[in-house]
Amino acid sequence: GSSSSFSSSSSKLLFRQLFENESSTFTYLLADVSHPDKPALLIDPVDKTVDRDLKLIDELGLKLIYAMNTHVHADHVTGTGLLKTKLPGVKSVISKASGSKADLFLEPGDKVSIGDIYLEVRATPGHTAGCVTYVTGEGADQPQPRMAFTGDAVLIRGCGRTDFQEGSSDQLYESVHSQIFTLPKDTLIYPAHDYKGFEVSTVGEEMQHNPRLTKDKETFKTIMSNLNLSYPKMIDVAVPANMVCGLQDVPSQAN
Amino acid sequence: GSSSSFSSSSSKLLFRQLFENESSTFTYLLADVSHPDKPALLIDPVDKTVDRDLKLIDELGLKLIYAMNTHVHADHVTGTGLLKTKLPGVKSVISKASGSKADLFLEPGDKVSIGDIYLEVRATPGHTAGCVTYVTGEGADQPQPRMAFTGDAVLIRGCGRTDFQEGSSDQLYESVHSQIFTLPKDTLIYPAHDYKGFEVSTVGEEMQHNPRLTKDKETFKTIMSNLNLSYPKMIDVAVPANMVCGLQDVPSQAN
Repeated sequence: GSSSSFSSSSSKLLFRQLFENESSTFTYLLADVSHPDKPALLIDPVDKTVDRDLKLIDELGLKLIYAMNTHVHADHVTGTGLLKTKLPGVKSVISKASGSKADLFLEPGDKVSIGDIYLEVRATPGHTAGCVTYVTGEGADQPQPRMAFTGDAVLIRGCGRTDFQEGSSDQLYESVHSQIFTLPKDTLIYPAHDYKGFEVSTVGEEMQHNPRLTKDKETFKTIMSNLNLSYPKMIDVAVPANMVCGLQDVPSQAN
Repeated sequence: GSSSSFSSSSSKLLFRQLFENESSTFTYLLADVSHPDKPALLIDPVDKTVDRDLKLIDELGLKLIYAMNTHVHADHVTGTGLLKTKLPGVKSVISKASGSKADLFLEPGDKVSIGDIYLEVRATPGHTAGCVTYVTGEGADQPQPRMAFTGDAVLIRGCGRTDFQEGSSDQLYESVHSQIFTLPKDTLIYPAHDYKGFEVSTVGEEMQHNPRLTKDKETFKTIMSNLNLSYPKMIDVAVPANMVCGLQDVPSQAN
């Protein structure tokens, strides 16, 4: 949940953080409500909550342009395919490096715009090879403070596992320290998941209090290799589906 | 979760929305971080998440002054008593009309201040007789847009049940329409619970899309009397405990 950040000039961000309870996934709705069309985008929509999100978008009079993912998720099926079937014209978006199917493929440095508000694409591989972080733009006409949608790269007081999907703790450490911890300290961090009831943090806060990422790299890598997490229970369904936008093209055989 | 609302003059609000998963309760942390002490308050803390909240308060360098409740909850045990034992000096706060024990009793029109930020107390009985809504102050030096912590009076696209704890649907309807729907349309609505993954709404949004409160009063009363909700499973533990700040004084016999 959040407020509509007030920006000094034309663009006016409407922002909603939405939670899917079973996989503890956050979906983010952003729109520029000063633009006549009220163009909007969703980050990391979940198939189970697509109807809820579409109803909210309709009630708020928004026009959904993009359904984006921060990466190929292993713990839930993405809603991008469903959104496309229910709202023809919506474009599914993911990083090129993910190797997944989508309408639009993003490369580091690309910008995704809705009205006068834009998101900057930063490559943050490590949890998976294709992970990106979407960061709101710099400048007085963009939301203040800035917002970073970090997917599973940075979680509040934690980070994504690095033992699946071409994960690499070495690479994750480099990604976070070069692409996220270099943002202004007051930049809000909005992760793809939270399991403790938190909803937002800041770059400064994670640089001070994140129990893993504040360590030196070697210690971090040791921590990550000793997590002993269980096998991700949905991975065998979620990854194949999410490689095709969550059944955008219904595969002949589910799994 | 949310951003630190930027206000034009001295006070600077730090705001965190925190979720307790079992009872789907939102706890709210507010602090004035432009004040040297960084004074803070918690609204509707839950006993199960007191340690989480205290750790965050410590990490952010805040000084907890008040642990407040919007009403005597029936679905979880409040954390105010526990907070007092763990942080001597913290004052528990509730409405006088609740009939509950606490350090400070609030009446309609009272103001609760932390630094230069204050909350205004509005009586919003109907879910229970003692329900209040806390609303951030009016004026350029207060957070913009304003924020209303409505407890169970207004939920996102819903409202609290009115069949227990001296509830009255007639009274709830009057409370909401006179005390909450009269606030500016962009006022953010932060409820005590949500079961659908929403986190925030606005007065304007609920006045347009709330399926119950947008009806006329007679229709509303009919809806509320036909909800057929199950018996509140925690009420026999929660209400007795919450009448004493969640075991502020350990009762001789639990229930």
